[in-house]
Amino acid sequence: MRAVDLIVKKRDGGALAPQEIDFLVAGFTSGEIPDYQFASLLMAIVLKGMSADETARLTRAMIASGDVLDLSGISGTLVDKHSTGGVGDKISLVLAPLAAACGVHVPMMSGRSLGHTGGTLDKLESIRGYRTDLSLERFRAGIEKIGFAMIGQSETVVPADRRMYALRDVTGTVESIPLITASIMSKKFAEGAHALVFDVKTGSGAFMKERDQARALARSLVATGVGLGRRVTALITDMDQPLGLKIGNFLEVEESIDCLNGKGPADEMDLTFRLAGWMCTLAGVSADPDAGEKLAREKLADGSAWRLFLENVEYQGGDTSVVLDPKKGPHAHVVRAVKARGEGFITRIDAYRMGVASVILGAGRSRKEDVVLPGVGITLLRSRADSVRRDDELCLIHGETEAKVEEACTLAASAFQIDATRPAPSRRVLEEIAET
Amino acid sequence: MRAVDLIVKKRDGGALAPQEIDFLVAGFTSGEIPDYQFASLLMAIVLKGMSADETARLTRAMIASGDVLDLSGISGTLVDKHSTGGVGDKISLVLAPLAAACGVHVPMMSGRSLGHTGGTLDKLESIRGYRTDLSLERFRAGIEKIGFAMIGQSETVVPADRRMYALRDVTGTVESIPLITASIMSKKFAEGAHALVFDVKTGSGAFMKERDQARALARSLVATGVGLGRRVTALITDMDQPLGLKIGNFLEVEESIDCLNGKGPADEMDLTFRLAGWMCTLAGVSADPDAGEKLAREKLADGSAWRLFLENVEYQGGDTSVVLDPKKGPHAHVVRAVKARGEGFITRIDAYRMGVASVILGAGRSRKEDVVLPGVGITLLRSRADSVRRDDELCLIHGETEAKVEEACTLAASAFQIDATRPAPSRRVLEEIAET
Repeated sequence: MRAVDLIVKKRDGGALAPQEIDFLVAGFTSGEIPDYQFASLLMAIVLKGMSADETARLTRAMIASGDVLDLSGISGTLVDKHSTGGVGDKISLVLAPLAAACGVHVPMMSGRSLGHTGGTLDKLESIRGYRTDLSLERFRAGIEKIGFAMIGQSETVVPADRRMYALRDVTGTVESIPLITASIMSKKFAEGAHALVFDVKTGSGAFMKERDQARALARSLVATGVGLGRRVTALITDMDQPLGLKIGNFLEVEESIDCLNGKGPADEMDLTFRLAGWMCTLAGVSADPDAGEKLAREKLADGSAWRLFLENVEYQGGDTSVVLDPKKGPHAHVVRAVKARGEGFITRIDAYRMGVASVILGAGRSRKEDVVLPGVGITLLRSRADSVRRDDELCLIHGETEAKVEEACTLAASAFQIDATRPAPSRRVLEEIAET
Repeated sequence: MRAVDLIVKKRDGGALAPQEIDFLVAGFTSGEIPDYQFASLLMAIVLKGMSADETARLTRAMIASGDVLDLSGISGTLVDKHSTGGVGDKISLVLAPLAAACGVHVPMMSGRSLGHTGGTLDKLESIRGYRTDLSLERFRAGIEKIGFAMIGQSETVVPADRRMYALRDVTGTVESIPLITASIMSKKFAEGAHALVFDVKTGSGAFMKERDQARALARSLVATGVGLGRRVTALITDMDQPLGLKIGNFLEVEESIDCLNGKGPADEMDLTFRLAGWMCTLAGVSADPDAGEKLAREKLADGSAWRLFLENVEYQGGDTSVVLDPKKGPHAHVVRAVKARGEGFITRIDAYRMGVASVILGAGRSRKEDVVLPGVGITLLRSRADSVRRDDELCLIHGETEAKVEEACTLAASAFQIDATRPAPSRRVLEEIAET
């Protein structure tokens, strides 16, 4: 088998056979197939696509390139959730203990902030002492004991993805549904999950701005799950507005605590319950997502999810006193309000601008090596569809320097759109795509 | 400017600006843009194409990557011919002295055998002593004195093409009209030609098997010529049957001598006269190709072309006694006839099979490092449309070993198709594509 012949096959629109995909991924990972050949192949894949069968095999070959976490000692179906990234998306912090409270085992593997979006690991680490670099043994024991545990991606898992991603980043081959699918799925399944629920975001604050793109990715994820013999469901959800009211690291921990205590914003809770309902369904805990959602609402209301969250914080080294009394947590020194410049109804709060404003404040990273600030961010005081008068406070900007706060205020102000008529209500869950 | 942004632009079907193409070619040639980025760009070009303007700029940027032969001391328009390669294609040996006899200055830059096709340099070097590695000074003086000279590609000319070709070869990006166009044109113009006539071959013995592909290349060559402000004409010619009656190195020199002495096969002479007519036209020696063709027929008939051929052989170090008496030239030791296995009319002599048979005999190279044998090859005794009876001799196979001759005989025999009805006459020149 020669790499060049397989490149030509894909270039001409052919489908690669399973053993051809294995040969390419193994050869690239070992260095036998040079970067220039793989780069040409990647561009051919971007422009000619891959079938669900090819994508499933690519995922399998990538998983086979490194270690696979063995969580087989834990009983039941392990279900994780993956979000494609958004602004104010603190769902994981609430969903993991909630699903665990319903009886689902959750090996939650999360990422760090990227571009204008936040990262679950950064949020968790804003809790003093909280560690996300658990050993495999401690990760497994946490899931067994509490029902869930939270870690970052292990270094030895899916080396093919790290190499491929580095190459895609510099060769204009990031934007490809099959390549994105295989990258996400390989990491999730190598980290021990049996089934997955995807939260595919669309709108200004998402990476997939267009609904069509989000739908194509959601369908690819579900079809690839079928190809891998794994249960996968994908929800397409709105990320045109920030999720909930708080954006930042510890600010989002605060809001998660509110959520777990029954005081969360409706948009955020509705999405969280729906995702929990699907996790219960894939785990076999509930017959369908409606029943799962009902169970989740009960487990939030009776305090079980909150108790498991506290247990997890303690288990992962976090200071529970901060979680029990968030005033003790990190807070920014400069806080300034953004005021309405007109009157009427808030018809839009642009998620992308809010995300960029929070990165300016230091909640996210412009470069990989940047250090995130735990206390900075944005608190929305008004939501979409609220009526406002001139000079009403719309949101608070929390920063560490006057200059950054000034810059973020200007951008955040431009995110609010105020019009004369009240907008129609919006929903977070736009579509649900499940195996047929 | 970042290479990755330009890759994305091309990937998404955009046109690269002149300075962007310059940046990419210069960066790749210097090594600043790594192979993996250029490979991804090449695949995007293969799949998304390039406009005539982009192709012209690519050609210009490739020319600028190295030396350009300065033949400015020679008066008049320098015109070269380029063939995309075929079987039995000894046109250059006859055409160069013929065009020179008409008053055209011809800086003929040729290649070596490639795949199943022969190479002009290999043919010339089968004349004892003939050198194709002239210095620039000697090349220039030869053109001034005799009207033409014959060399191979200089090492310092168009380094971008050598690097690009090596990369294209291993990344599945050879098959691209704009990349092929820029590769051919950059070398020809960097070697000092002002105007070009292309012989774009189509049929089984050509690289472009399909007429559509050949037409697309011919159009691209002419359009790119316009973009470069150079006069370019492209003839699409039939290469489904070998050209003339002899295939090999010295065998083709023999036939060229026949041609120059008025005893050449009609198909070959007609094409040669037509190409000469166009060269005269582009050089301004004749008003149009018909007038140029007429002039060329006169210059062949009056012996001027033959005299210039002899002068050139002497000038480039060749033994003229061999040319004056070809029996003194190299000849193979084993000669065997292929006989007809049925009776009727020859409807086809497959050029590709004949080309491969000649490579088996050693007339061409299977690998770059192979040494070609000067005396081996094939002599056709019958042509297309001839009637034959069983056991009539169809062709002679000239080889150095019984085994190779045996193998070539079998393949050559399979190249002849004999049917009951006489085929319609065929023409070599199928289309002429010129500036509009």
